[in-house]
Amino acid sequence: MKLALVGQLGVAERETWEEALRQALPEAQWVEAAPGAEVDVALVANPPPGRLQGLRGLRLIQSLWAGVDRLLADTTLPEGVPIARMVDPAMNAAMAETALWAVLSLHRGFFDYARQQREGVWRQLPQRRADELRVTVLGLGEMGLTAARRLVAMGYRVQGWSARPRQEAGIECVHGEDALPGLLARSDIVVNLLPLTAATRGLFDARRLALLPEGASLVNLARGGHVVEADLLAALDSGRLRHAVLDVFQTEPLPAESPFWNHPRVTLLPHAAALTDARSAAVIAAGNVRAVMAGETPAHRVEFTRGY
Amino acid sequence: MKLALVGQLGVAERETWEEALRQALPEAQWVEAAPGAEVDVALVANPPPGRLQGLRGLRLIQSLWAGVDRLLADTTLPEGVPIARMVDPAMNAAMAETALWAVLSLHRGFFDYARQQREGVWRQLPQRRADELRVTVLGLGEMGLTAARRLVAMGYRVQGWSARPRQEAGIECVHGEDALPGLLARSDIVVNLLPLTAATRGLFDARRLALLPEGASLVNLARGGHVVEADLLAALDSGRLRHAVLDVFQTEPLPAESPFWNHPRVTLLPHAAALTDARSAAVIAAGNVRAVMAGETPAHRVEFTRGY
Repeated sequence: MKLALVGQLGVAERETWEEALRQALPEAQWVEAAPGAEVDVALVANPPPGRLQGLRGLRLIQSLWAGVDRLLADTTLPEGVPIARMVDPAMNAAMAETALWAVLSLHRGFFDYARQQREGVWRQLPQRRADELRVTVLGLGEMGLTAARRLVAMGYRVQGWSARPRQEAGIECVHGEDALPGLLARSDIVVNLLPLTAATRGLFDARRLALLPEGASLVNLARGGHVVEADLLAALDSGRLRHAVLDVFQTEPLPAESPFWNHPRVTLLPHAAALTDARSAAVIAAGNVRAVMAGETPAHRVEFTRGY
Repeated sequence: MKLALVGQLGVAERETWEEALRQALPEAQWVEAAPGAEVDVALVANPPPGRLQGLRGLRLIQSLWAGVDRLLADTTLPEGVPIARMVDPAMNAAMAETALWAVLSLHRGFFDYARQQREGVWRQLPQRRADELRVTVLGLGEMGLTAARRLVAMGYRVQGWSARPRQEAGIECVHGEDALPGLLARSDIVVNLLPLTAATRGLFDARRLALLPEGASLVNLARGGHVVEADLLAALDSGRLRHAVLDVFQTEPLPAESPFWNHPRVTLLPHAAALTDARSAAVIAAGNVRAVMAGETPAHRVEFTRGY
């Protein structure tokens, strides 16, 4: 089988991926993705738009990243070739760790205690039980569910929202756009783990942020495009929104002039909530490659109509 | 029954406790603890030394705090009167939350990311899986076990140490002083939840800190007396110890001149890892009061020979 690794990767990052993929797919022949080249599977990590054009015999585009919104924005993608997302339990776990850390930090005032330490202040803050907090997880895919289940295990009152109906023990699940306003209005902490699609872009605008109760907090671990940043800043500046934990931004790396850097109500991460682990992701990609070469359907195939 | 609330409490704190205790024990007659007074049960929160002397008919000293080291240091405690510790599932949960937050923060570099945010640096740090970290919980009482189980649920390699033998699913348990050096030597993060006794005072001195692997971290949520602060500072300054999360100190509130306040490798909390929740603690105290009045043995009775 002929495979190509196509993506915008740093030198060290490319080496890490090449080694992991070679170990996971020792039978593969690695070729360059160039117009006219025969390639069975393209393994892609933010490929430059147009780079997958003109490949011959392509049977699968396997994303090495979980999010495929940038990939799908490439209008030159070869038609009819299935695209698979990366769904890696190790990455789901990493995302759940970050979600739980953010919720614990907001719940127990650890961001406030950090500020108190810098200011030399010794003061105990009010302490609530976990079951007094309503934590809402938006998006109940593999990442959202992993995070939601761990939040349940910690005793939080967990609510979940998804586009389509879901049922999950211990989680109050609602679905569809009509259910969203009511859900936001009864959320102390909102954790966003939605895919970025036409339907979810700009979800957190002034109107929806105003639905949150006074003192609520937002944790965005999904995509910068979910948030209208000016509206979020206004909600934080007014004090209505207590805190935002942001891993993703409209522009990344976050420009030096962004007011998020120094905002007292913002904790930011450099798109590090869940880094893809090349070791495990290469093994998962290998499974999908072999399935497709054996004539089977790849796992986690993108549905174009829903956008992920 | 005649009950007395004896402790060093602020005005608002005393009101909170009085209201919670009155609700939990509507049948009680509340009296002043004065020499010669008849008191069935003294409910105590850091009582000034000597204040429990001369009470008549005392059947139980019920601590409202989990730690009894300060209480037991009072050499004038009436002899033969049982003392009960406060063991409250709500407090165990709060302690486990803090332990998990500290471990997640150390594991995933969230303290480092906070520093990067202050410095305007956008850089992803290496990410390890939870099962690549050895987290050691010292003390497998109710708090230690609650924390350890939640760490297991998050996928960490959890090791536990206790004075006496214990077995617990998913936790590699060792016990006794002889097992401690080897355990420390294979710990990436140590979470201290031991009681403060003659045997554990000064546990973290230069010798024991030197047993930790290069780059290990310490989380002290128990008592300041467990740590020789000068030795800890030296280990942090040398860079051998990566980070310390400290909730408790030799002197509290932590003096303004303490180098811990501004140490780049120290995250400190104002003895807030698990605040006693008067609502639930009063109900638990009431159960013990009624048990003793009915001639039963109180729960969580202090064993003087072991010191807690």
